[in-house]
Amino acid sequence: MDDLFRAHAALLDAAVAAARDRGFWSAFPENPKAYPEGAAAAGAAAFEALVNRPFDLGGTADVPARQVGSEVSPFGPALGITYPARPADDLVDAAERALQAWAAAPVERRVGIALEILVRLNRESFLIAKAVEHTTGQAPAMAFQAGGPHAQDRGLEAVAYAYAEMSRVPGAVLWEKPMGRSSIRLDKDFHVVPRGVGLVIGCATFPTWNSYPALFADLATGNAVIVKPHPAAILPLAVTVRIGRQVLAEQGFDPDVLQLAPDTAEAPLAKDLATHRGVGIVDFTGSSAFGGWLRANVRDKLVFTEEAGVNTIVIASTDAFSAMCQNIAFSLSLYSGQMCTAPQTIFVPASGIATDEGHRSFGEVGSGIASAIDVLLSDPARAAAVLGAIQNPATLARIDAARGLGRIVRDSAALQVEGARTATPLLLAVAAEDEAAWLEERFGPIAFVVAVQDAQDAVARATRAAREKGAITAALYSTDAAEIERAIPAYARAGVALSVNLTGGIYVNQSAAFSDYHVSGANPAGNACLTDAAFVAGRFRVVCVRRPAAA
Amino acid sequence: MDDLFRAHAALLDAAVAAARDRGFWSAFPENPKAYPEGAAAAGAAAFEALVNRPFDLGGTADVPARQVGSEVSPFGPALGITYPARPADDLVDAAERALQAWAAAPVERRVGIALEILVRLNRESFLIAKAVEHTTGQAPAMAFQAGGPHAQDRGLEAVAYAYAEMSRVPGAVLWEKPMGRSSIRLDKDFHVVPRGVGLVIGCATFPTWNSYPALFADLATGNAVIVKPHPAAILPLAVTVRIGRQVLAEQGFDPDVLQLAPDTAEAPLAKDLATHRGVGIVDFTGSSAFGGWLRANVRDKLVFTEEAGVNTIVIASTDAFSAMCQNIAFSLSLYSGQMCTAPQTIFVPASGIATDEGHRSFGEVGSGIASAIDVLLSDPARAAAVLGAIQNPATLARIDAARGLGRIVRDSAALQVEGARTATPLLLAVAAEDEAAWLEERFGPIAFVVAVQDAQDAVARATRAAREKGAITAALYSTDAAEIERAIPAYARAGVALSVNLTGGIYVNQSAAFSDYHVSGANPAGNACLTDAAFVAGRFRVVCVRRPAAA
Repeated sequence: MDDLFRAHAALLDAAVAAARDRGFWSAFPENPKAYPEGAAAAGAAAFEALVNRPFDLGGTADVPARQVGSEVSPFGPALGITYPARPADDLVDAAERALQAWAAAPVERRVGIALEILVRLNRESFLIAKAVEHTTGQAPAMAFQAGGPHAQDRGLEAVAYAYAEMSRVPGAVLWEKPMGRSSIRLDKDFHVVPRGVGLVIGCATFPTWNSYPALFADLATGNAVIVKPHPAAILPLAVTVRIGRQVLAEQGFDPDVLQLAPDTAEAPLAKDLATHRGVGIVDFTGSSAFGGWLRANVRDKLVFTEEAGVNTIVIASTDAFSAMCQNIAFSLSLYSGQMCTAPQTIFVPASGIATDEGHRSFGEVGSGIASAIDVLLSDPARAAAVLGAIQNPATLARIDAARGLGRIVRDSAALQVEGARTATPLLLAVAAEDEAAWLEERFGPIAFVVAVQDAQDAVARATRAAREKGAITAALYSTDAAEIERAIPAYARAGVALSVNLTGGIYVNQSAAFSDYHVSGANPAGNACLTDAAFVAGRFRVVCVRRPAAA
Repeated sequence: MDDLFRAHAALLDAAVAAARDRGFWSAFPENPKAYPEGAAAAGAAAFEALVNRPFDLGGTADVPARQVGSEVSPFGPALGITYPARPADDLVDAAERALQAWAAAPVERRVGIALEILVRLNRESFLIAKAVEHTTGQAPAMAFQAGGPHAQDRGLEAVAYAYAEMSRVPGAVLWEKPMGRSSIRLDKDFHVVPRGVGLVIGCATFPTWNSYPALFADLATGNAVIVKPHPAAILPLAVTVRIGRQVLAEQGFDPDVLQLAPDTAEAPLAKDLATHRGVGIVDFTGSSAFGGWLRANVRDKLVFTEEAGVNTIVIASTDAFSAMCQNIAFSLSLYSGQMCTAPQTIFVPASGIATDEGHRSFGEVGSGIASAIDVLLSDPARAAAVLGAIQNPATLARIDAARGLGRIVRDSAALQVEGARTATPLLLAVAAEDEAAWLEERFGPIAFVVAVQDAQDAVARATRAAREKGAITAALYSTDAAEIERAIPAYARAGVALSVNLTGGIYVNQSAAFSDYHVSGANPAGNACLTDAAFVAGRFRVVCVRRPAAA
């Protein structure tokens, strides 16, 4: 039994059980106070020590590499960090060299190392939080949780799935077929064989949370991994890869089992890598444009994508109008709507809805949400903590362009935060016919209140939007139990996770590791679920060697 | 609990356990004597009752359909059976209508029905055997075993995998996240949602054995299924579909959950169906040409293929020369080499090999195999029972063309069987450089003995052939344990199942349900394994519905 596997056996067992049970479970505490005193300050100092110099990935051969990197914090400063960049062929060659010993290692050895990497990443959560904050624009608390422990939980979930699937393959069996008075006896050995090299293409908003499932699923199943970060969010994955390489090297493996492939917007690497004959698996999070390119052009490989979508809310009725408006206001505001799970399009009957506060007109529902946003963001410190910053300047331009798409219920504005790129939610009222407005993904703090006929019309439009444009989340508010039950099959067929009547401290945007299946793979928001058996089971193959058994 | 599910629960439990243990297990007896007296005669009579008339698929709406069908037995007679043929759009529309209730049915209900269909198929094994015999050219005993119980075992294996994967998804859980002194509580329901419509494209040589895994995996996971048989082997799948439709209708489902899509060589349907927007899954067994077309042209669907390959044998040394030659002779002769698992290319060191009978030269190894073929086929009745008939006239032409590719060690000849299209194995000796000869799949009773440098060269060529051209099986004969251990990783990397030193009544061609992983998906012989979790796990998706739990 491998040392690291034994050391982390309890963690793995708990993770496998949690992924099966799907109740609440978390391995890595989301509360910063659960970490040692001084860890936050040490993380901040470690971040400061990285800026304005070349990043050392560790263990790299002494090949002079081109340095790339021009990350700028959405909160202001340029990071001034550069990373060694290598051509696609060199990366794949190195991965294929490193792969041989890694693929041949026992499952337990690889899983033990993957778990050790996760535990070390957890220790560096404050450094990673800083790196996530200053690349994505996530506010500090969210950068810590989503970039650190939540992402680590998702990586662990992938290891748990991969281990469960691999451990279902027996190592060796005696196959004995009765043939009348005698029998035919074969010894069979089953070999778990990886696909080869996995490419993980990261995104700019959740560089760790969206990459860890693929990264750890690939590693655990014996593939070498090339991580191609978004040029705007390299640092979080560079820190991740460095830690992984350290563990791999300590354990006697070629660190090139895990490589970073930084590139630039001017000379992107993703297409070259994704179509490289040496790459067997491609995982991508990002735009539908590039996701579509991958789905069309990458042949004979496993391709997993998480792409864009139009997440919707249907408001049919509520017995908690204020709490509903507050809940929706928070969902629209959190990280300025830059989550793949953030709602964009809110359907409300044109004739208004019944609430615990009496009838509310269509206009009153919109203004109720707008007011709740105003209240939520009225305190500047809280506003900054909820909104964070805008990752990409293009999002500001998108807000500007969106203002003309409908009646402005609540306008977007910048926060008064020195140097930071910020914007509060823009809320527009539109007619159901204005599909050009509400039926296109408009990434960022842009939302629509859409006047529809009734609840049935709302559900029909919401589920059609999911089927045609993709959706990762949907929300429904209704006090009519029968209406909810009628709606559920339509959402299920549309492949979108549904949250019903959420109020209080839980939001449609939140996707919990070990419980929620993130992305369904059943609508255009992604071609795969990122947290199920199918996500890991194809990353390895099984080869049987059989021979006559000794009598 | 569903009645059929309960009725077949012991069968399912045993199948799930067997697929996990991977020792020998079979649900459906391969010995015809295990079946009721008179069953064989009844099956033959049922077959005779089908010939020379339109086939009634049962439960079809009274839409007048074009009749197609021109099957001719490789043993002589035209079957004279026609089948109702519908356009792709009509088939998909009907499937989508039937799908709604099927997808909404509980997992246990669908699994119970799938198991009932298998049990009924088993009762009709003698009819199916006749149908397989007179479309594929398999000899009667093989048509019974491979077309009947073995195929049913493979269908059952797929149901077992599908059930195991679906049952890992909990139906409903309480998610309770501690938040200091209080907690957030959500009720979560998980819905298993099928992809939609599955297309299963059958082949002419193993219409049931190669189609049942996909057919039953699709059905169990809630997809409607359109079975597109090869125009030369419609009947076995027509009988299958009819039985399935009977069970579906009896259980209150629209029989169009399972449809037959017969077509003709002149007006093929497969491309229209495979690219139809309503089809979500495509399973194909057949040529690399069409498999490649599917892989290139079918976008955003699950595509599983089993294609061509070059299966190899490496003879490095043996301590059982005669038994080895006999074993190989049988593997080359069985069903006239028309198995996807049949060996084609045999590597032998040019300097000969060490054997229990002393040194044997390259020429002596070839002539040893040739003599063993001659002995095996010396009795006409046995020859007919081993060889069966040649499914496709093109195979005879291929044999003729192959004669010029090398030195003829053993020539092919027809058996003296009135009306049947037959051919004994052609064995050619070629040089290692003659890759144009031995490195292309030549489907049918055509094999090459290739002179190579030594065992290491042989293994290198065999594994390269698997990597580049695909292979489902490989065999290795060696008395050197260290040589075998060195070779295994190369075969594993090439993704090909390896049989070592087989003699006696077990052959490299044989792939046992519940034990051998059929096709690896790790080389060009197929993009998927047909018997693992990955083969079923993506056929359904999971959608979560969550709402605040009652306090």
